[in-house]
Amino acid sequence: MKIRTVVWGENVHDRESAVVQGIYPKGMHGCIADALNADPAISATTATLEQPEHGLPQERLAETDVLTWWGHRAHGAVSDAVVERIAERVWEGMGLVVLHSGHFSKIFKRLMGTPCSLKWREAGEKERVWAVNRNHPIAQGVGDGFIVEQTEMYGEPFTIPEPMETVFISWYDGGEVFRSGVTYQRGGGRIFYFSPGHEVYPIYHNASVQTVLRNGVKWAHNPAPTWAGVTKNMNVPIDKAPEPIKEHGPHLHKPGEAGRR
Amino acid sequence: MKIRTVVWGENVHDRESAVVQGIYPKGMHGCIADALNADPAISATTATLEQPEHGLPQERLAETDVLTWWGHRAHGAVSDAVVERIAERVWEGMGLVVLHSGHFSKIFKRLMGTPCSLKWREAGEKERVWAVNRNHPIAQGVGDGFIVEQTEMYGEPFTIPEPMETVFISWYDGGEVFRSGVTYQRGGGRIFYFSPGHEVYPIYHNASVQTVLRNGVKWAHNPAPTWAGVTKNMNVPIDKAPEPIKEHGPHLHKPGEAGRR
Amino acid sequence: MKIRTVVWGENVHDRESAVVQGIYPKGMHGCIADALNADPAISATTATLEQPEHGLPQERLAETDVLTWWGHRAHGAVSDAVVERIAERVWEGMGLVVLHSGHFSKIFKRLMGTPCSLKWREAGEKERVWAVNRNHPIAQGVGDGFIVEQTEMYGEPFTIPEPMETVFISWYDGGEVFRSGVTYQRGGGRIFYFSPGHEVYPIYHNASVQTVLRNGVKWAHNPAPTWAGVTKNMNVPIDKAPEPIKEHGPHLHKPGEAGRR
Amino acid sequence: MKIRTVVWGENVHDRESAVVQGIYPKGMHGCIADALNADPAISATTATLEQPEHGLPQERLAETDVLTWWGHRAHGAVSDAVVERIAERVWEGMGLVVLHSGHFSKIFKRLMGTPCSLKWREAGEKERVWAVNRNHPIAQGVGDGFIVEQTEMYGEPFTIPEPMETVFISWYDGGEVFRSGVTYQRGGGRIFYFSPGHEVYPIYHNASVQTVLRNGVKWAHNPAPTWAGVTKNMNVPIDKAPEPIKEHGPHLHKPGEAGRR
Repeated sequence: MKIRTVVWGENVHDRESAVVQGIYPKGMHGCIADALNADPAISATTATLEQPEHGLPQERLAETDVLTWWGHRAHGAVSDAVVERIAERVWEGMGLVVLHSGHFSKIFKRLMGTPCSLKWREAGEKERVWAVNRNHPIAQGVGDGFIVEQTEMYGEPFTIPEPMETVFISWYDGGEVFRSGVTYQRGGGRIFYFSPGHEVYPIYHNASVQTVLRNGVKWAHNPAPTWAGVTKNMNVPIDKAPEPIKEHGPHLHKPGEAGRR
Repeated sequence: MKIRTVVWGENVHDRESAVVQGIYPKGMHGCIADALNADPAISATTATLEQPEHGLPQERLAETDVLTWWGHRAHGAVSDAVVERIAERVWEGMGLVVLHSGHFSKIFKRLMGTPCSLKWREAGEKERVWAVNRNHPIAQGVGDGFIVEQTEMYGEPFTIPEPMETVFISWYDGGEVFRSGVTYQRGGGRIFYFSPGHEVYPIYHNASVQTVLRNGVKWAHNPAPTWAGVTKNMNVPIDKAPEPIKEHGPHLHKPGEAGRR
Repeated sequence: MKIRTVVWGENVHDRESAVVQGIYPKGMHGCIADALNADPAISATTATLEQPEHGLPQERLAETDVLTWWGHRAHGAVSDAVVERIAERVWEGMGLVVLHSGHFSKIFKRLMGTPCSLKWREAGEKERVWAVNRNHPIAQGVGDGFIVEQTEMYGEPFTIPEPMETVFISWYDGGEVFRSGVTYQRGGGRIFYFSPGHEVYPIYHNASVQTVLRNGVKWAHNPAPTWAGVTKNMNVPIDKAPEPIKEHGPHLHKPGEAGRR
Repeated sequence: MKIRTVVWGENVHDRESAVVQGIYPKGMHGCIADALNADPAISATTATLEQPEHGLPQERLAETDVLTWWGHRAHGAVSDAVVERIAERVWEGMGLVVLHSGHFSKIFKRLMGTPCSLKWREAGEKERVWAVNRNHPIAQGVGDGFIVEQTEMYGEPFTIPEPMETVFISWYDGGEVFRSGVTYQRGGGRIFYFSPGHEVYPIYHNASVQTVLRNGVKWAHNPAPTWAGVTKNMNVPIDKAPEPIKEHGPHLHKPGEAGRR
């Protein structure tokens, strides 16, 4: 079965900026979805901010294996309820690929527990994306790295938790560096953040970037069953303890009570 | 200078339960603060839920090096604004020691980005806390581990991110195990979670537990200057780039504009 | 293509101990290989200590995707040259699954950089293996964990580096705990250590243990191309620098010289 | 008590190269020791390759809190016995600061378990060292980073294990990037690798580099007692088990036998 992928796009600059429209006539999400669908293992559709529930109702998320996220200008317009819904699906096992300015999205900050702030500069300078571990699944097909001819600079310090793996580190004309590809595990779900993707440059048409997107979706896909109840504490009553035990001492909770958690 | 420590206590069961009052006449926070103040390097005061701003106004947090957190029944009563204030102070460099049922507090879940759920059983059974790395600063003075004679069982899966360091793992009479001491870095701040501490048993009177509390506070203390502006993106204008560069191509942001972040 | 797996067995107690022979008439390696071959994605063969080059000549390793390792009594009899050969293959991308007393093998210690020491007791006690992350690929099919009815106790402190992921933690009748399933990345290769497997108990006949072995081999398999030259430094001459630069100042190495590394 | 630090220098180019002599009249180790002794918390002495046991007899190591290591041309001349002695001291709790070309030393490779290979170029180009976490103890006093005016380029992929913390990342004129400051824990000991330090440039006279050296030594110092017996397995006899158990089933080891480990 194909990896059911939803490409989420903010779709604001895509509609309002002539520059962005010129580069991405189908929107950035359309371009990304096309790049993903070029891989026979992936089946990608799109969702956008202006749709009801941002195109991400519970039923659709329940049938999504991997979600990709691009937002920039309208992070604050994303509903907190949808953010929690996505976080819960990630903990249940859904993969998440966060792109570029998505570093400051509610969902990424929610899952990292850090500010996710950085330095930035919009100068169309050159970025060299270096692979730290060329044998990592996400780095397949791009050798030791690749060039993004025009990019927005993102610079350290990038206030993220120490990654599970640092896959890419970028070099910029202007003198900065950035951990441009990093991975995390959160509950049952895998998260990949990838920084190239400023909307006024044709970055998602770059063949190497498209390769990384496809690799990232495949890496983030966890075929394990949904981790139902991942957010809940679970009482193990005394008579169901793995080893036979007796109760000692006082207690707060009455037998059969679920606890106040 | 001493480590300025605030011991935060929910102070609900401490007042309402005769059992808890009997064990902790000054409240659990009072007992913990006394244990910390036994160390000449620490200066501990207390704060509780029912105080204005939960006893944690901005000015007090600004002068706090390490905050310890115990809550259980009233997690939902903690104001979201105070939670964000604490999170920001952690990112700026304040240490945080989260205790027992604090695993399900707003602040811990906020900083972990995961559900932080677990299994539990209130049976007064025995817990063996084993030191995984006996040379870790937090494990000093407790040898290879210690016993909590009566404990609430907390069992895996504990849905936290992979820790920076697993310091303690616990064994229970009833057959479960638990990562009972784990560390994290979030921005400039260090976090230590330590699970023993159920309120109906005299756990914070246990000498080894008190040793771990003192060690934890000292470990979590980061003497570096406050990381001001840690939550904000920072623009590096083209003419301030470390290396001289010229602008190429179109742009979203006008010169001098701060960005929509 | 199937995952080409070599099951390495020390094959000493397998031949010399009547108890072990009774449990494993084909040797432990034979039992493990049969368990792996029950999975259509795996093609497992065996190799043993007493064979020339311990059954692991360069050509065979070059065509091996994953190696599993069980040794106990004769770690010192394994040739250093073969150990280095295996280490290099792991760095090139071969997966490695280290079993039970293999924690003290030359190859595991070589790849960890730590003593890999532990506590132990041979009492046939019960072990409860708990899954820390039930959605991890290695934990598929065993639920929240499983029981090994008779086991050798392995206890913390286990002097390994902090794992990439802690997959399993074990509980023992006698009161100890152990990180019984842990993962690492070393160069291009993935490593999984799994502790159950004492030779005088029928542990590799346990269905859950067999499931973990199959999962472990599939997880450790890295389909990326061999990372040729992974052990070598690589000079980038000045005229091949990604960005044009000029030489400044003195130098140790003459142009074209490979360096003394 | 001061941190008893030994600055180990290979002392080959220091004596044989007029260029290096001109920059470091007391040898590189002499310059580094002076920089460390400028901190009242540190007491640094030196040791060099040509001394008996390379200046590191067992008794001296036993009284060393932190060892710094610089070698380049003569890695192969370091005795394997001394390397093992150092590794064991690190596991027991001694800190280790590995400098520049020390990435390819026997001791660093021994403790990492990976090739520790990299790209390099000797062109005297500029290096920008960026602090990833400016609140890390090792980054105190250098702000967001600093410049090394003339450096040897070290480029990714750097085949090390994923670090505990990535403290610094470097940018080079020629287009590469490098994880120039990384930390590890191995047993009871802390390890800091720091890449600037090519011998034909006056890098150890750079004030920021000296600050990092002092910070690194202080960070690597673990005041915990020596972890005696860290390399040994430890039998816990049945009658000494924490919980009372009875033996079940057959066994390999006779009572009182130490095991063949």
